[in-house]
Amino acid sequence: MSNVWGKSIRVSIFGESHGKGIGIILDGLPPGKDIDIDEINFYMDKRSPGKDELSTSRRERDEVEILSGLFNGKTTGAPLCGVIRNSDVRSSDYNPDLPRPGTADLTAYIKYHGYNDYRGGGHFSGRLTAPLTFAGSIARQILKRDRISIGAHILKISDVSDERFSEINHELLEELSKSSFPLINKKVQEDMKASILRAKEDSDSVGGVIECAAIGIPSGLGSPFFDSMESSISSMMFSIPAVKGIEFGAGFDIASMKGSEANDEIYLKDGSFYTKTNHGGGINGGITNGMPIVFRLAFRPTPSIKKPQNTVNLKTMTNTEISIQGRHDPCIVKRALVVVESALALCILDSMLSDRW
Amino acid sequence: MSNVWGKSIRVSIFGESHGKGIGIILDGLPPGKDIDIDEINFYMDKRSPGKDELSTSRRERDEVEILSGLFNGKTTGAPLCGVIRNSDVRSSDYNPDLPRPGTADLTAYIKYHGYNDYRGGGHFSGRLTAPLTFAGSIARQILKRDRISIGAHILKISDVSDERFSEINHELLEELSKSSFPLINKKVQEDMKASILRAKEDSDSVGGVIECAAIGIPSGLGSPFFDSMESSISSMMFSIPAVKGIEFGAGFDIASMKGSEANDEIYLKDGSFYTKTNHGGGINGGITNGMPIVFRLAFRPTPSIKKPQNTVNLKTMTNTEISIQGRHDPCIVKRALVVVESALALCILDSMLSDRW
Amino acid sequence: MSNVWGKSIRVSIFGESHGKGIGIILDGLPPGKDIDIDEINFYMDKRSPGKDELSTSRRERDEVEILSGLFNGKTTGAPLCGVIRNSDVRSSDYNPDLPRPGTADLTAYIKYHGYNDYRGGGHFSGRLTAPLTFAGSIARQILKRDRISIGAHILKISDVSDERFSEINHELLEELSKSSFPLINKKVQEDMKASILRAKEDSDSVGGVIECAAIGIPSGLGSPFFDSMESSISSMMFSIPAVKGIEFGAGFDIASMKGSEANDEIYLKDGSFYTKTNHGGGINGGITNGMPIVFRLAFRPTPSIKKPQNTVNLKTMTNTEISIQGRHDPCIVKRALVVVESALALCILDSMLSDRW
Amino acid sequence: MSNVWGKSIRVSIFGESHGKGIGIILDGLPPGKDIDIDEINFYMDKRSPGKDELSTSRRERDEVEILSGLFNGKTTGAPLCGVIRNSDVRSSDYNPDLPRPGTADLTAYIKYHGYNDYRGGGHFSGRLTAPLTFAGSIARQILKRDRISIGAHILKISDVSDERFSEINHELLEELSKSSFPLINKKVQEDMKASILRAKEDSDSVGGVIECAAIGIPSGLGSPFFDSMESSISSMMFSIPAVKGIEFGAGFDIASMKGSEANDEIYLKDGSFYTKTNHGGGINGGITNGMPIVFRLAFRPTPSIKKPQNTVNLKTMTNTEISIQGRHDPCIVKRALVVVESALALCILDSMLSDRW
Repeated sequence: MSNVWGKSIRVSIFGESHGKGIGIILDGLPPGKDIDIDEINFYMDKRSPGKDELSTSRRERDEVEILSGLFNGKTTGAPLCGVIRNSDVRSSDYNPDLPRPGTADLTAYIKYHGYNDYRGGGHFSGRLTAPLTFAGSIARQILKRDRISIGAHILKISDVSDERFSEINHELLEELSKSSFPLINKKVQEDMKASILRAKEDSDSVGGVIECAAIGIPSGLGSPFFDSMESSISSMMFSIPAVKGIEFGAGFDIASMKGSEANDEIYLKDGSFYTKTNHGGGINGGITNGMPIVFRLAFRPTPSIKKPQNTVNLKTMTNTEISIQGRHDPCIVKRALVVVESALALCILDSMLSDRW
Repeated sequence: MSNVWGKSIRVSIFGESHGKGIGIILDGLPPGKDIDIDEINFYMDKRSPGKDELSTSRRERDEVEILSGLFNGKTTGAPLCGVIRNSDVRSSDYNPDLPRPGTADLTAYIKYHGYNDYRGGGHFSGRLTAPLTFAGSIARQILKRDRISIGAHILKISDVSDERFSEINHELLEELSKSSFPLINKKVQEDMKASILRAKEDSDSVGGVIECAAIGIPSGLGSPFFDSMESSISSMMFSIPAVKGIEFGAGFDIASMKGSEANDEIYLKDGSFYTKTNHGGGINGGITNGMPIVFRLAFRPTPSIKKPQNTVNLKTMTNTEISIQGRHDPCIVKRALVVVESALALCILDSMLSDRW
Repeated sequence: MSNVWGKSIRVSIFGESHGKGIGIILDGLPPGKDIDIDEINFYMDKRSPGKDELSTSRRERDEVEILSGLFNGKTTGAPLCGVIRNSDVRSSDYNPDLPRPGTADLTAYIKYHGYNDYRGGGHFSGRLTAPLTFAGSIARQILKRDRISIGAHILKISDVSDERFSEINHELLEELSKSSFPLINKKVQEDMKASILRAKEDSDSVGGVIECAAIGIPSGLGSPFFDSMESSISSMMFSIPAVKGIEFGAGFDIASMKGSEANDEIYLKDGSFYTKTNHGGGINGGITNGMPIVFRLAFRPTPSIKKPQNTVNLKTMTNTEISIQGRHDPCIVKRALVVVESALALCILDSMLSDRW
Repeated sequence: MSNVWGKSIRVSIFGESHGKGIGIILDGLPPGKDIDIDEINFYMDKRSPGKDELSTSRRERDEVEILSGLFNGKTTGAPLCGVIRNSDVRSSDYNPDLPRPGTADLTAYIKYHGYNDYRGGGHFSGRLTAPLTFAGSIARQILKRDRISIGAHILKISDVSDERFSEINHELLEELSKSSFPLINKKVQEDMKASILRAKEDSDSVGGVIECAAIGIPSGLGSPFFDSMESSISSMMFSIPAVKGIEFGAGFDIASMKGSEANDEIYLKDGSFYTKTNHGGGINGGITNGMPIVFRLAFRPTPSIKKPQNTVNLKTMTNTEISIQGRHDPCIVKRALVVVESALALCILDSMLSDRW
């Protein structure tokens, strides 16, 4: 099984890209929380495609119908289920016999003995991040009222890089989360966009890196060992299709540091603990220390490209070639930003409801 | 809660560094499996310290007493519990009032309201990787009989790098897993050791990167979304103290690739599926494709160093300094290799027992 | 949290009686299983009300729309979600200020701080057994192809009793599961029905006992301790509203037996193990022994009755009276039969997919 | 898997009757709780055998060594592990080829393919209730400081019955929990004891019923559906060997009641909610209502009896007879009382830590 996540909140996801609908159940939400549907829609729109030349021309409305768990505009405490109908699907673009390299086509075929709904990637489609964004948007609203802010920016597209987070505050994260192309150093925007368009013209695609942060985090979240905050966040983030790496704080750079550099020295100010640096990404021993949570995710380039590639024909069991004709994003990083922010909101809310006595 | 991991096998860990003992329960093991105690002891010894100048002079015996689950040398199917007594502890080295920067001292103090056993890092100690290695060594034996091999090498110590895996076969992984300083390119060994000793002389420490691989993996393990193979492995690996990043296959490098480069093209040979490259690290859409599983972990430098650092006095609530006098490894990467291999064995066995119909 | 059940299959339920809809996700189903929608509808109809004078005149259609997990008439292996729209609701029958004795009205009010959707009992409504029946009907079809049959009969309504199971075979269980008023001794039918109608005329309600059995069960299902087959079945059955007791095999009668009577003596026939009696209800030490699983459930009388009862006014916080006007079943036992059978199917399928090596 | 239970606290049990030791890990305990070892020992002694002619002459010391999670007499918040060494074992009493009717001998043999440790029932032994009692005794101490009391009495031995609970208060429960033969109506004591001794003389055994109650329970514990308070308690209680039935409040008697009798009418007194009767056993819709939790458990007679019984020889695969020579309790009800109380303490503490926002 694979579709359930969480300790105190329980996220259950379902759906296939070209089936009747996709959706999510979010259980364990505290009752009496006001839910702002407009805010949810804002986040859903950030994820949805078809808005500019940088993404697929496929138009998904991503309108969520809430079937339960909401009464008079507030959470009831009972499971909240949101459903999104599928529409504008072009299943004819998909040939079940030719697995697309870099996708789950072949592994799903093997795992499910050929019975998986292959159309549009089925249950493995990036489209499933829509219900995840919906659920995360609800968690995010609840966190926001506790003065917890979450924001992400594009750190890299292909070989064009933004700067990493230095100073992090609520205003910056708010701004990033509202921006359609969030960057710390806005000067790299044109180069990034150019690199995406170039890939598109080449019938190819590009990947990138997203950096995400959250502030206002209570210290003491997470647990030693298997429920470390990093374990929880990484298990969630690797459920986002295309993620191939995660690093917290200084991440892989910490391997080249001396202990005296890597250690975040502690000091007191106005009765609260702080660290001078944040190489730990807000987490020590699996537990939050109150500093910003910071992590980065590596996103692979969209695997569905027009360029011809080698693959096998599952029917004839022979080697062959494929050139993928569907409407695919040349780069999914931009649309993935809000998914990452939403997924982090679920992790933080779950820990806040669990990791206490 | 934090001490339980797994779907079909259930790993429950316990213990504090300077308490009476540490240990682990491993439930869900298939019955009737021969357990080779000598092989377990070999792996336990690889992790244990005090063997050379590169690690702490603290001498832990790490002898595991198996209390249950083993009968006539075979698994019974009932929970298998292994206990390791603590000895050679010098609790006087630890001052509960001065949290060591970079450790869990402060976060544990906050989370547990000061009631945590602070001695030697308590439940957060790297010592807890001993029972994890024990449990993993059992899983590993079971996998080995299915022709699944696991091996790791040091990819980096401070700024000295080994080569990444290219050709991976059973012999190489076996050799790496038996080596006391496993490398692909053995020429870098002296530089790596020198870099560790230099840090030791400087009262400092260094970090590094471990690269681990497994072959013989059945295709079809793992699940879409929250039980993706990457989710499972990463949630386990981040429970190893000092890990701050994980990447699969091409990892963060994939962000700079084109789709046409990143995609692992598929071909048939002798009726089996293969990919020409392995940028996915053996996993597509969260599910194994039969190619080697490959991932890398960033390890931070040992936080406990003699060099003076800023911290706070929790009793007086004032800013102060700390110079740590205990016997600590200048680099834990070498000892962590077998921990990583063992942890991966648990992940693979758990998936093999779960992810099927 | 409360809405997720299962080890290998994962059942996630949602919905409120008078909200937009109710439903269920069933994850972990093996792929490639043919699903017969007509058979599902037959079971759904057995549960649905409004068919005769013995049940409420409320007419629920209980038509399930399957949103995912089914492709070309077969399971895909991905989560299967079924949704039932609510209709024919008369929310005006419900007054949030007057909790109905014997229901969850007061406890839900307390737990959810008054934010629960109180209409029709909300998430606590017996209506939620519709998605459970849907999910169970799918499990049941899969079991049936493995020659596992499940059937239940009314053992008691008020003070009128049927006979307990003696000889159990596939034909009997099949017949019971198809019958609209299943009994071993059909002669008690009129008395039972009379007792229900009498309660209805008295503005009152009656309870009863359901006895359920399953045959064709593989031996070796279940586990010692917390996943004993009895633990699994009871945790599921107590989620059915109105159940207040469960007993396996001889149940409470076993307390008065001698060991020499209670023990089910073992014998071999044609190479298979059997027991002469089945006081254990097919389970020893939490593990199935291959004999029929037999258990009984006590159902309380419908709490919603017209007869005036004492309660409190939550708004004025004063003692008062309530006379409930809604359309309620004078006895829910008859409609609960198929719910129990379905719930058992989920338990058995979950164990068959989990309790093996 | 089977050895892990709980949502916020996590109980992991291990051990086999004649192996080196048995034990339990209890994770998720709040830190800083004083643990009274003498009180634990008092409860452990209540469970231990060999004290009078009513139980087996086998003498188990049941001394628990706490390996972790306790520091300066207080819980640390880290997993608490307790280990009990096995001693005074007479494995020669057990013949692996002759499964004892009514025990797990045959089902364990089938499930574990003959690799289970059969000696003394192995992992299925009633001896495993010792670590459960230990864990529950810790939970109980924590509850007691919140003015939650738990107590159980013998409701039935063979055909001799005590009275059910009527008035329940802290003093009564305290007295019952301290008594070595707890009864409401003490006059039945001699008859009960006589009935046990008669069975013993007859080389037979007798069963019984335990009634258990808890007061001071906060309202709002438990959840609708799969985590109903009844689901949680029953899943735990059926892990106690020999339990074949559980009923809450009026239990099976409720089946014969009218709704107007069964409903617990609600009233206000001094600002708090009460019910006039308690047929619901303190639980409505799966959620506690603040009234005492009351339930009864049916215990089967000890299956190990000297009287000859039919069984099979697993080696020769022939029908044969067995006469069991070990030292077995003629009735385990008396020793099971404290096990039930302890198990309930775990359920309540787990819910108190989980079922809140």
